[in-house]
Amino acid sequence: MSESVVSAALLIIGNEILSGRTQDANLHFLAGRLNALGIRLLDARVVPDSEARIVEAVNELRAAYDYLFTTGGIGPTHDDITADCIAKAFGLPIAENPEARALLESYYPTGALNERRLRMARTPKGARLIENPISGAPGFQVENVFVLAGIPAVAQAMFEGLVDRLVGGRPLLSHAFDVYLPESVLAPGFEALQARFPDIEMGSYPFNRGGRFGSSLVLRSTDSDQLAQAAQGLRNLIAELGEEAVRERPPGEPEPNS
Amino acid sequence: MSESVVSAALLIIGNEILSGRTQDANLHFLAGRLNALGIRLLDARVVPDSEARIVEAVNELRAAYDYLFTTGGIGPTHDDITADCIAKAFGLPIAENPEARALLESYYPTGALNERRLRMARTPKGARLIENPISGAPGFQVENVFVLAGIPAVAQAMFEGLVDRLVGGRPLLSHAFDVYLPESVLAPGFEALQARFPDIEMGSYPFNRGGRFGSSLVLRSTDSDQLAQAAQGLRNLIAELGEEAVRERPPGEPEPNS
Repeated sequence: MSESVVSAALLIIGNEILSGRTQDANLHFLAGRLNALGIRLLDARVVPDSEARIVEAVNELRAAYDYLFTTGGIGPTHDDITADCIAKAFGLPIAENPEARALLESYYPTGALNERRLRMARTPKGARLIENPISGAPGFQVENVFVLAGIPAVAQAMFEGLVDRLVGGRPLLSHAFDVYLPESVLAPGFEALQARFPDIEMGSYPFNRGGRFGSSLVLRSTDSDQLAQAAQGLRNLIAELGEEAVRERPPGEPEPNS
Repeated sequence: MSESVVSAALLIIGNEILSGRTQDANLHFLAGRLNALGIRLLDARVVPDSEARIVEAVNELRAAYDYLFTTGGIGPTHDDITADCIAKAFGLPIAENPEARALLESYYPTGALNERRLRMARTPKGARLIENPISGAPGFQVENVFVLAGIPAVAQAMFEGLVDRLVGGRPLLSHAFDVYLPESVLAPGFEALQARFPDIEMGSYPFNRGGRFGSSLVLRSTDSDQLAQAAQGLRNLIAELGEEAVRERPPGEPEPNS
């Protein structure tokens, strides 16, 4: 990693992910969005609703990366312990945040803001709120830690509202080739290409489409010139092997899911 | 955690997960299957294709939990470094495994087992293979570490073939109630129920079905008697609040995804 890399980690909080009840969707969303902003997601962890585990992970990850995002555990029930854990990790008191209370007051109909919902107005002292346009109760930021909801639609809306607080580096560009050749046939030339372009991340992912096997070869770099050179090298390699890419995605087109 | 808990961790290996290219599906699968076998998944991490990161995580997790599963990075290309990293983590030499070679020879048509594919026969010395009924190249086991493919169908097939090597504890049972009440209304009674049954894991998850908001309340325990008592307490709570559960899933019925 060069010095200019802006890095992030994600901490997914919740027994329900580790029990198999709920399939996480926030990692995939944040990975794509952060990388597009020039922020490399370099670590992701899932921890249960355990104060000790959450506090330890928060302190390790916030020290190791430029940004830490957490998802989950900010609702009104007793298993929602994220705000308390963040306060503990920072050694801050936790208390009702007047701004958060005002947001809840404006969100709920008169009389509906009960004691439990008010629990969602508690933040570590000095936290900056992250608005929740979907269901009212805000997330919050303490230093480089951003605390988001677990429900994917809410986490995504919160993220879009905080993007202007993030300072990214050069975005990671990717150039991908799909080709109907097995990885094993491509591998020697692909490895030689990696040796020629050591700073470019190269990944190979096999696929099977309608019974036909092939490989997606992905080149990733923040340097568009080098990336274009490596892409030309890969185009040549595929041609030498007597094939052509069935799909080529130059930088600027988002990588599709697979 | 009582002493009788059998624990596991999952290490997901691959730049493609952290770049947003690929959505992981192995965590969700393994979480559900392990818990059904009486093995609690207590930690999951995603690391890039970095030798240092993989070796560090393998050594930390294999020491901390009864079982460690890894997914990804066992193909034929130069970005597939998992086998080498496992060998390094254990301080073992890596070499062609004759049994793995035999599996590859029987899988590929004559002449198709090229040098690159043979790379997938390399394992740390003494590793026990994990068969791959889908695409030939095996996974492997070293002590309490199980190395699986990243492709979900292959990882799942490998897992089913190694289940008889795992010794679980008492399976975690769950009893879930879906009710059209907001979490904030349920929360005080739910917290009181938790205080009455401190050994039962209780989780609350909001949902929105066709515009109607509600809560899924989930009780989890390895003790079926205590679980039944707590479930009765929750049934009473819901009735006291003037509602009834729209769906109740007693132990034995798998938890649905959400």
